[in-house]
Amino acid sequence: MAEIPSFHDIESAARRIAGHATRTPVLRSSSLDEMAGCELHFKCENMQRGGAFKFRGACNAVFALQAHDATRGVVTQSSGNHGAAIAMACRLRGIPATVVVPEGAARVKLDAIARQGARVVRCAPNQAARDATTAQVLQHTGGTLVHPFDDPRVIAGQGTAALELLQQMPGLDAVIAPISGGGLLAGTLLAARGHAADLQVFGAEPEQASDAHASLVRGARVQDWPIDTICDGLRAHLGELTFEVLRGRVEVLLAPEAEIISAMRLVWERMKLVIEPSAAVPLATILRHRGVFAGRRVGVILSGGNVDLDRLPWSAPSGTGG
Amino acid sequence: MAEIPSFHDIESAARRIAGHATRTPVLRSSSLDEMAGCELHFKCENMQRGGAFKFRGACNAVFALQAHDATRGVVTQSSGNHGAAIAMACRLRGIPATVVVPEGAARVKLDAIARQGARVVRCAPNQAARDATTAQVLQHTGGTLVHPFDDPRVIAGQGTAALELLQQMPGLDAVIAPISGGGLLAGTLLAARGHAADLQVFGAEPEQASDAHASLVRGARVQDWPIDTICDGLRAHLGELTFEVLRGRVEVLLAPEAEIISAMRLVWERMKLVIEPSAAVPLATILRHRGVFAGRRVGVILSGGNVDLDRLPWSAPSGTGG
Repeated sequence: MAEIPSFHDIESAARRIAGHATRTPVLRSSSLDEMAGCELHFKCENMQRGGAFKFRGACNAVFALQAHDATRGVVTQSSGNHGAAIAMACRLRGIPATVVVPEGAARVKLDAIARQGARVVRCAPNQAARDATTAQVLQHTGGTLVHPFDDPRVIAGQGTAALELLQQMPGLDAVIAPISGGGLLAGTLLAARGHAADLQVFGAEPEQASDAHASLVRGARVQDWPIDTICDGLRAHLGELTFEVLRGRVEVLLAPEAEIISAMRLVWERMKLVIEPSAAVPLATILRHRGVFAGRRVGVILSGGNVDLDRLPWSAPSGTGG
Repeated sequence: MAEIPSFHDIESAARRIAGHATRTPVLRSSSLDEMAGCELHFKCENMQRGGAFKFRGACNAVFALQAHDATRGVVTQSSGNHGAAIAMACRLRGIPATVVVPEGAARVKLDAIARQGARVVRCAPNQAARDATTAQVLQHTGGTLVHPFDDPRVIAGQGTAALELLQQMPGLDAVIAPISGGGLLAGTLLAARGHAADLQVFGAEPEQASDAHASLVRGARVQDWPIDTICDGLRAHLGELTFEVLRGRVEVLLAPEAEIISAMRLVWERMKLVIEPSAAVPLATILRHRGVFAGRRVGVILSGGNVDLDRLPWSAPSGTGG
């Protein structure tokens, strides 16, 4: 297993990606504060390059490569945002990118990958097919694999979102981010710990994809768990490294699908921000678990805004991805 | 006719509304800059209280009232955003508000008015009915009429958006705002003139509601002009006062409906901002008239974000309001 990144690694990542990543704004909403009974500070990673926090980790990993590795390119597997982020980072560095994408990924995300000039290789929508296809591509290109989350460079990059948030809004009592493979939450936790020892960090997960919650409660990674959520960014399981970072250090709160969709719509209506379903899970859990956050200053990472505007969850048949 | 407000009136309005209105962010998009061939700085009035710039003018007018007038309340007629803004400002000042609303106004806007505790009076969707109903309400309540745009207090309030923009982003070459009754554009022009004499100010109007363009080209207000636009915020004609402010001082650029809808969708997809069709007209005209703006630093007022999320223009039958 790779080494857990340090706070210093997150600071280094922030310097490495500074010329490329957007310093996203932190926005507020008095009506959402009122509904939640606490003070919410939304870190707008939906406005990050590529429309998601994923660019931070991808950019850090791609630009951390030694020159002789970089020339052979980067390979990754991704349901969307990470793939687009790797493609974009590789274009910026001028090296080839190959993205292994499962059938069924959102059109808007595939378009984003293709726009960046990356090679897209499709595979069946299961982990075995993704791994086999990725191994083939790696063997063929001699490129470097950058895992979507279980990679210290990626975790350190994702941590820069919380690092910025804590600089932009000092004095937060808690930070909450969605959890899927755990890269964002692991980076958030490491950034928070380096910043203030008593800052509480929460994960937010759909009830219908509660594998991270189960893993952290049991103290062991669940490998096989039913996943049936509209949140197409939250369908991965924790990795070895992210589990190691998070175990015993974060509480994961859950929200049902209908409340996630309501929270998403609330952010669209009240904040005028386009966010994807995955990004609405933290707010959904805050509104569900008001007692946990009452009266506190809470940083909320709006993880992404890549949603298919022709298939919104409040108009599309339920259970289909955004 | 009322007196044209001065730059000093706009500065006073900024102080008057400071505790109530949101200092909205100015956001950028590298991909839209690339498409437009110029540097775009978007003033996010979609994030203003009530979801539109209208709160600025309404708030200034309501808080400028003398105490003995204020107690009898405020009356207005509005297709939506101004009505909600008056309702909100009156609630903040603790005085009654009555809003005369034509049948056919967007549900999301009626909801916004009702949420603020204002009395809503419906009337037929034509100017004669609106005027007659408004006169009745005024006689009955003894309240003060605050016209949606042809009022110096309202114009001064709307001008605070551009005033802020010019403070937040010094060195702009041009500012562009949508034009309907002309309150926003008149305020924008007065703020720009007080700030820098050579700053160019543009209006943006749908081709299918080009009455302001026609009025300013002819040098006389057109009173009867075909209006058939999806932009439900841009269906009014210039007022006496706003015409007087704008004549000879601004150029109005036009855009067709399909390009307005495309521009709206671009802002949603690339900037992750929810804007209403009216707010997309400036970007649509910039993309249509690239030569005018090439290489310049352009402030764009995103006027509002109150759109019915169940009836988006790219899914609803064409020609229906958002």
